Amino acid sequence: MNSFGRLFRINIFGESHGPSVGIIIDGCPAGLALNEDDFVTDIERRKGGMQKGTTPRKEDDKPIFLSGIFNGKTTGAPLTIVFENKNTRSSDYEKGREVPRPGHADFVANKKFGGFEDFRGGGHFSGRLTVCLVAAGVVAKKILQGINITSTITEIGGEKNIEAGLQKAIDAKDSVGGIVECKVTGLPIGLGEPFFDSVESVLAHAVFSIPAIKGIEFGAGFAAAKMFGSVHNDAIVDATGKTATNYAGGIVGGISNGNELVFRVVVKPTSSTPLEQESWNWQTQQVEKFSIKGRHDLCIALRVPPVLEAVTAMVLADFFLLEQKTKRLL
Amino acid sequence: MNSFGRLFRINIFGESHGPSVGIIIDGCPAGLALNEDDFVTDIERRKGGMQKGTTPRKEDDKPIFLSGIFNGKTTGAPLTIVFENKNTRSSDYEKGREVPRPGHADFVANKKFGGFEDFRGGGHFSGRLTVCLVAAGVVAKKILQGINITSTITEIGGEKNIEAGLQKAIDAKDSVGGIVECKVTGLPIGLGEPFFDSVESVLAHAVFSIPAIKGIEFGAGFAAAKMFGSVHNDAIVDATGKTATNYAGGIVGGISNGNELVFRVVVKPTSSTPLEQESWNWQTQQVEKFSIKGRHDLCIALRVPPVLEAVTAMVLADFFLLEQKTKRLL
Amino acid sequence: MNSFGRLFRINIFGESHGPSVGIIIDGCPAGLALNEDDFVTDIERRKGGMQKGTTPRKEDDKPIFLSGIFNGKTTGAPLTIVFENKNTRSSDYEKGREVPRPGHADFVANKKFGGFEDFRGGGHFSGRLTVCLVAAGVVAKKILQGINITSTITEIGGEKNIEAGLQKAIDAKDSVGGIVECKVTGLPIGLGEPFFDSVESVLAHAVFSIPAIKGIEFGAGFAAAKMFGSVHNDAIVDATGKTATNYAGGIVGGISNGNELVFRVVVKPTSSTPLEQESWNWQTQQVEKFSIKGRHDLCIALRVPPVLEAVTAMVLADFFLLEQKTKRLL
Amino acid sequence: MNSFGRLFRINIFGESHGPSVGIIIDGCPAGLALNEDDFVTDIERRKGGMQKGTTPRKEDDKPIFLSGIFNGKTTGAPLTIVFENKNTRSSDYEKGREVPRPGHADFVANKKFGGFEDFRGGGHFSGRLTVCLVAAGVVAKKILQGINITSTITEIGGEKNIEAGLQKAIDAKDSVGGIVECKVTGLPIGLGEPFFDSVESVLAHAVFSIPAIKGIEFGAGFAAAKMFGSVHNDAIVDATGKTATNYAGGIVGGISNGNELVFRVVVKPTSSTPLEQESWNWQTQQVEKFSIKGRHDLCIALRVPPVLEAVTAMVLADFFLLEQKTKRLL
Repeated sequence: MNSFGRLFRINIFGESHGPSVGIIIDGCPAGLALNEDDFVTDIERRKGGMQKGTTPRKEDDKPIFLSGIFNGKTTGAPLTIVFENKNTRSSDYEKGREVPRPGHADFVANKKFGGFEDFRGGGHFSGRLTVCLVAAGVVAKKILQGINITSTITEIGGEKNIEAGLQKAIDAKDSVGGIVECKVTGLPIGLGEPFFDSVESVLAHAVFSIPAIKGIEFGAGFAAAKMFGSVHNDAIVDATGKTATNYAGGIVGGISNGNELVFRVVVKPTSSTPLEQESWNWQTQQVEKFSIKGRHDLCIALRVPPVLEAVTAMVLADFFLLEQKTKRLL
Repeated sequence: MNSFGRLFRINIFGESHGPSVGIIIDGCPAGLALNEDDFVTDIERRKGGMQKGTTPRKEDDKPIFLSGIFNGKTTGAPLTIVFENKNTRSSDYEKGREVPRPGHADFVANKKFGGFEDFRGGGHFSGRLTVCLVAAGVVAKKILQGINITSTITEIGGEKNIEAGLQKAIDAKDSVGGIVECKVTGLPIGLGEPFFDSVESVLAHAVFSIPAIKGIEFGAGFAAAKMFGSVHNDAIVDATGKTATNYAGGIVGGISNGNELVFRVVVKPTSSTPLEQESWNWQTQQVEKFSIKGRHDLCIALRVPPVLEAVTAMVLADFFLLEQKTKRLL
Repeated sequence: MNSFGRLFRINIFGESHGPSVGIIIDGCPAGLALNEDDFVTDIERRKGGMQKGTTPRKEDDKPIFLSGIFNGKTTGAPLTIVFENKNTRSSDYEKGREVPRPGHADFVANKKFGGFEDFRGGGHFSGRLTVCLVAAGVVAKKILQGINITSTITEIGGEKNIEAGLQKAIDAKDSVGGIVECKVTGLPIGLGEPFFDSVESVLAHAVFSIPAIKGIEFGAGFAAAKMFGSVHNDAIVDATGKTATNYAGGIVGGISNGNELVFRVVVKPTSSTPLEQESWNWQTQQVEKFSIKGRHDLCIALRVPPVLEAVTAMVLADFFLLEQKTKRLL
Repeated sequence: MNSFGRLFRINIFGESHGPSVGIIIDGCPAGLALNEDDFVTDIERRKGGMQKGTTPRKEDDKPIFLSGIFNGKTTGAPLTIVFENKNTRSSDYEKGREVPRPGHADFVANKKFGGFEDFRGGGHFSGRLTVCLVAAGVVAKKILQGINITSTITEIGGEKNIEAGLQKAIDAKDSVGGIVECKVTGLPIGLGEPFFDSVESVLAHAVFSIPAIKGIEFGAGFAAAKMFGSVHNDAIVDATGKTATNYAGGIVGGISNGNELVFRVVVKPTSSTPLEQESWNWQTQQVEKFSIKGRHDLCIALRVPPVLEAVTAMVLADFFLLEQKTKRLL
């Protein structure tokens, strides 16, 4: 299913080279002021072409509202936003149809959908759809008053300096991976549930829907494997639950504890490297060398921060709406 | 919600010191042979008391079938399995009620449930409920014919040698974390969906429901941040989709690609360290030193492998049932 | 799936002749006072043996709490309640295994579950499981403060007088159907959603899960087919939305309008009539006469009112929790 | 939520006077041939303007595919279809804003969504969205090979003759209700589940999402209240489960039994009667007479048959996909 969320529920659709991509947000509360301009900043941050290492493909990415808005406010009915695909060059991709690109979904999509999949530019698997996630984030943030979400790139190609990491890729005529960290302040205590709906569970679920992400860790994360319990345990120092350290990353027992929520994700190197590669050729039935001509990013991690923030906002908005009903009863 | 899965759906319940913990498996196909003995191996692996570093608490952990079995086979109706809690010593915990233990859910549970939570031994947040997950795994594996799931501890306290890692904890009179790796062979191509129902998404969701897990990475995982695309891309070498390397961990575009599924999780050090700690005292309204007297594991990671396998089996069984309908149509 | 509800979610399990039937209520708010005595009235109303026309099978039907209660209050964790099956006489049913009883699920269950179903006394299809629904209702009503739900039998065997209708069945040595009406007062305006989550949709969904119910109508119901719009339209007479008439049964556009919620259901005659009947014999492969010896009700409608109230309470509690979050935002 | 279905899942959006209404079908199998022409017949049947008694509003209602189709076949990705609203005359409705129309959602929508709802022409509550349901039906029927679904009007205004019933409404310058019957042949045995996912439950849920429907009955329906069990029980006469009568309407124990599925719905008279009515005036704060000027149907039941068939197809397609996985295992 291409939907996510319980009370703030999104549905995404579209293909890289179809007429458009879009999103329905169901369960969006009525009365939120919303207009085209609200989307500009985050959509611009996500766009390629502004930084070395990002793709020259340009889209207007103007949100078109199909439903759910009236007199500049959300109505409580499903909110549908569409982004047109204007700048597609399918011919780039059709040439390569006989070779499933390594690291891409070409091979598995073909097997899963029996050859009926729209393969142009990755079709429905394309990172193009992350513009829909960004849009969901813009709306979600309106629900999250007083909550601040920030993502930053902490590492590219093994370098703490982004420029240095990118230069490595440019020099090698290759693509490169990175790490992005997300921090959230202002969260109330009590979001999340034990077990399946823990904050870690639901957030990880959503975050792994962002193409190219291959790992996530909360707080101390993988470093916790080397730590003693007396160190990793964050001592509670006051009645509000403030802790002296934050190795738990703001989540204990699956529940937000009111401290900063901190997690990091790893973004694999862009699969479409400019270098020549090898793969199976369906036509010739043998392994062959080939290279990719389409427009691509040297480092997809560069475009992840606004998407990661958006997905985080979307998840938190859902938790937030869920928690409201609990609080009222107590 | 305390449920997970779409077609193979589990619901868990119970508290550490209540009469029992249990599970309903809804959507379990009819006709699977199932008896008490099927559960012995995995439940014994999960149990404490057999290895230095695990808790001396012992439970029979005999599965009691309340519904869904007839003449030794599943009926297609909900399968309910209960495990009695026989060996509880609540007094250990009641003493410490005024101090929310760091690293535990005590503080957040109190805030979230308004003080009505069963706090004894962690209540519903307890790792005790993982016996239910193990049971789900036993049933799930019956659906996964020809698929092999294995978890192994790869690191304890920073040591590749488990004994050495545990000794560190014993020497320090502290608890310690670890890393567990899970590998699955025999998976068909095509499990998972793009975006929200990617194998990574659903698996991570389920895996983070295991208490103490704070990170997950697939294939090369966090190391991918340092890799070039030309290296990370797994070249496809034959018509079955076999790849020369497996940095993707068997998942591309969120879909299983027929290669080995590989992922690793980090397990934080047991929160109940024998060392003296500090925390807020709700009664005295100040930070105080305290120590935990209950029975606990020095290294919870030791008990994670069978639970991790079970959760993985549960997720894959669900994907497997979902995929069958697709296959039939093609 | 054997579950229902979004925020107040129930899962039922068990078979007529298995060890027990039971229910998990997930999403039950913390802090509701709850004890065994709360269940007595509704469970007694549902029980057979107290009135001519109902089965002599007697069960203690004492609720056994397996989880979710602590110090006499709900904890916010899953609430599990089990009812033991003490008074089963399976031999009655096993004799007739070769003949699928008309009106019962025997035939379809056998086909659907491949012969693995527990067929004793209808197995998982048994009306026995409605005791679980009644239990859900007891809990749900605790959430619905100020809301009153009443079901009454309005017709048995075509007679407005219940005794007369039953006498018809007794005289004919047959079973007989009936109509039950449910009324709810005190509902707020605004429960329900347009389209799929309309009050009619969700209520009908739940109500048809009660065995033997074959129809439902809201307000004027089927009589509306003969009415003019100027009559059926309920004129709004004040600012609170009070209407002069109530042909809509308290629901307009799928949403509660603050007036009395009114609906009626038809209950088919008990399938297990004492009269001799004909059915296919799987063994002899021909149509044969047979009669049913088990204990059964002459008129199952007699036992429906408390179940119908319970199911209604369960649905309304769910809507109620959902609506709270909306209201808070406005 | 504005979505329905488990494996064949639809999401609808839009308002009567917004730019468009539309639908996403998620879970649609890949490889179904689909083009604009497939929609013509059912969409034309649903349209107003062709028969006395239906509204003169005309829409092209040409399906515009936004995603999920490639080379004339479904791809397995979400299928998005949009219908533009070209022929709206909002001014008709804006005039009456101060009077919530009886029988319409005006009053409850205003209370539920705090005045932020798009009230023009009923907004998101409009019957206009049923064109999306019809589209879902067109796709669903492609999955239901060998299954035939037919809806017919059996009664208008108390008359078995449609023309006579309509003439009554025309003569009275009023609107009138009706009854529509739906029959399905070719269904396999075994669709549906006991309790919450019974065929009756899921079908009723979906059917009540069609505006104006206020009752549903299966097989003998409400007449069953007057029947003896020996009559209502459908005797099984052969090994395929064929029954001598069909008072159960093809569903026993919530499961399809291979006989014809039969159910009837009642459609209330169109709320927008041409006659003068009374309602509360929000502005003047008193009850006032008013009349409705917009374009409306004298008898909405006339437009229900294709929508009812579509909704039925949608539900059955979902059951069909679910059942396939079960069958494969047996």
